[in-house]
Amino acid sequence: MNANPGDRIEVRTAEESYEGVLMPSESKDSIFLKLNNGYNVGISKEKIRSIKTLEKAKAVKEEKPKPVKENKKLPTISILHTGGTIASKVDYKTGAVVAKFKPEELLSLFPELEKIANIRSILISNLQSENMRFAHYNLIANAIEKELKNKPKGIIITHGTDTMHYTSAALSLILEGIDVPVILVGAQRSSDRGSSDSATNMISAAKFIANTKFKGVGICMHSDTGDESAYILPAMQTRKLHTSRRDAFNPINSTPIAEVFFNKDEIRFIDKKHYMPSGDFKLRLFGEDIKIGILRSHTNIMPEDISYFKNHKGLIIEGTGLGHFQTTSFDDISKINEKNKLELSKIIKNGCTVVLTSQCVFGRVDMNVYSPQRELLDIGVIPGDAIPTDTAFIKLAWVLSNYKDDIEKVMLQNLRGENPGRIQEDEYM
Amino acid sequence: MNANPGDRIEVRTAEESYEGVLMPSESKDSIFLKLNNGYNVGISKEKIRSIKTLEKAKAVKEEKPKPVKENKKLPTISILHTGGTIASKVDYKTGAVVAKFKPEELLSLFPELEKIANIRSILISNLQSENMRFAHYNLIANAIEKELKNKPKGIIITHGTDTMHYTSAALSLILEGIDVPVILVGAQRSSDRGSSDSATNMISAAKFIANTKFKGVGICMHSDTGDESAYILPAMQTRKLHTSRRDAFNPINSTPIAEVFFNKDEIRFIDKKHYMPSGDFKLRLFGEDIKIGILRSHTNIMPEDISYFKNHKGLIIEGTGLGHFQTTSFDDISKINEKNKLELSKIIKNGCTVVLTSQCVFGRVDMNVYSPQRELLDIGVIPGDAIPTDTAFIKLAWVLSNYKDDIEKVMLQNLRGENPGRIQEDEYM
Repeated sequence: MNANPGDRIEVRTAEESYEGVLMPSESKDSIFLKLNNGYNVGISKEKIRSIKTLEKAKAVKEEKPKPVKENKKLPTISILHTGGTIASKVDYKTGAVVAKFKPEELLSLFPELEKIANIRSILISNLQSENMRFAHYNLIANAIEKELKNKPKGIIITHGTDTMHYTSAALSLILEGIDVPVILVGAQRSSDRGSSDSATNMISAAKFIANTKFKGVGICMHSDTGDESAYILPAMQTRKLHTSRRDAFNPINSTPIAEVFFNKDEIRFIDKKHYMPSGDFKLRLFGEDIKIGILRSHTNIMPEDISYFKNHKGLIIEGTGLGHFQTTSFDDISKINEKNKLELSKIIKNGCTVVLTSQCVFGRVDMNVYSPQRELLDIGVIPGDAIPTDTAFIKLAWVLSNYKDDIEKVMLQNLRGENPGRIQEDEYM
Repeated sequence: MNANPGDRIEVRTAEESYEGVLMPSESKDSIFLKLNNGYNVGISKEKIRSIKTLEKAKAVKEEKPKPVKENKKLPTISILHTGGTIASKVDYKTGAVVAKFKPEELLSLFPELEKIANIRSILISNLQSENMRFAHYNLIANAIEKELKNKPKGIIITHGTDTMHYTSAALSLILEGIDVPVILVGAQRSSDRGSSDSATNMISAAKFIANTKFKGVGICMHSDTGDESAYILPAMQTRKLHTSRRDAFNPINSTPIAEVFFNKDEIRFIDKKHYMPSGDFKLRLFGEDIKIGILRSHTNIMPEDISYFKNHKGLIIEGTGLGHFQTTSFDDISKINEKNKLELSKIIKNGCTVVLTSQCVFGRVDMNVYSPQRELLDIGVIPGDAIPTDTAFIKLAWVLSNYKDDIEKVMLQNLRGENPGRIQEDEYM
């Protein structure tokens, strides 16, 4: 192959033809192209019939960013980086993802920030967010506590989008009584794509921190597929609901907290009754090795699918509808469901705390409607109420890390806005 | 207690006061009231301070339904009953759920049906749908095949809403080449509630069958919270997305097939390119004891969470984002993620077919974007593409019941409209 990383090439296989920029790679078996739509594609070398170089790579001369002067009229915002697509750029010469972390580099990527705040920039980790573990939540929280000593007006956490709403829930729980805004931002499209949302999300978060009195944890992501505004979303009631759209983040059983417009100096508060932390600031961390499972209900649940969790500290059952699970017998075929109920009862007696949520995503679990549900309440299943499944999972892990008694009571309390009791049957979807 | 079942009573506990109709019950510990909103509530006898009878039960004299005469101008529709809220009524005198199954009884519940079709009515089972197992899908399919001998214009299946979209996917796969419409209907609110959707859904399904040339499986449920219309939804691309709203059923990566208006004689086709069966009719049933799991990705996945599935025939991993799972190490904390990948590789080698979908609900799994995903492809993980998680689960069970070879190829084929390749990034949500 005569092409070099950075060259624009055309690759033909028996079935397909691809055009894009050749990416550097360690692979012996495949080559990788960055296509025009911004996605990368891997092509097995075996399948390649021909490669044509369309344009040689240009030598890129990086402009050296200017050093940043402090503007005493502006507030300070600390940006803590955890990884993900935002605030990173692919260097076509080396193929490495170049993370821009020094303040002056960040400002060269997002120059609008300079007019909003003095930026402090700290690297905590650099990972794709689906790989985050409970220990990472503690790591981020500790970095936040440390950074608070520098008295920023607020903190931005850059984060991969896949599990951003898990982390927002976790930080909201850990950072008890936090009295500054902590806003998570991510990007669905990398900054080298025309449709990238990294700059708009980042700048909106900064504007929101600089210009409002909000405190506590939130998420800042695009409000729709247009280029109008970003939403500030509630830390405990948000979920990523699309694999690729920029407006993938949606409030669950709730509304956005506020809308930050891109092209005008306007921030509109939508939910004026949203949760705000109060009381003394205190870190309450996760037990890093705590075992909490999720069992998504499906056809043919077997008793052993349940007994697997007997040594777990907690289990979220993502049931169906108003909060149902495959535990009732109506005929010969469904007789085995009675054994499911028995196993469930056993693991609860064995010390596993079981919370039932709904795979419907939206709406409230109500276990007082049908008698099989009341039987589940009788054996000790805790209803998830209006808490979204992912938040219920994070909350259960945190509650079992921090409380010994009254687990059911604490799970159903509205600790950080996750179960505010305001949901109307037909109100939110 | 002086009150009798059917009496309207007021119950006071230390904290609350309830008003409703006393339901009969076998429970020694609790009494059950049907509240004015239609829901039942159980109240522990220990907690009751006082009970006051507000109105004694009236003796209900059931009108005897008139026998039905065949109208030779109308088509015949067969209604097969599997249980659920629709087509049932609570008898306050006995407390039993009275299922209305004889044609003349159905017509007394839904008198409008008489003008649309001659109704045949068959009871298959009577269970709450969360308790359905693969064997029930075969049971329903066999009943459909038997009923086809009576040459109906189409078939309505009444079904609990919780797992209706699992059953629609299952029937769509089993009933290969079916050349009549098979429409599943349910109700989110029982027919004794003012807001019940049972009549509108049932009548819309009958109108759709009587007046269109549609064939194959679909779902008929309310289109919105108003009383305007019902949607006919695609069997393989629909999900229940709200615990209680009447418009809980939503197309996933797709649109409704058609809209049936309640108050005018209009049926509007929305998706004119929807799947229609072709070829010879043949039942292809489920292996009733086949073991297929779902592992919903979450923080702190442990290797043993994966190896649990080593003897399963198939596993759906409901990953995050574009199709990610906790299998990559970036730092000391995430080192254990490498073991997750190893275990995944082991169970695949052991014969478990693994398909990766996304918990984002909407959008397409694309495993060619990031290198950790390409590593998953390398160890044999099959991308779920645009197939919704629940449909992927049903399809995997069915494919492994019916095919020995080419499992990956068949999983990615568009067998019944589940993966039509029409989804645009920003198109559907």
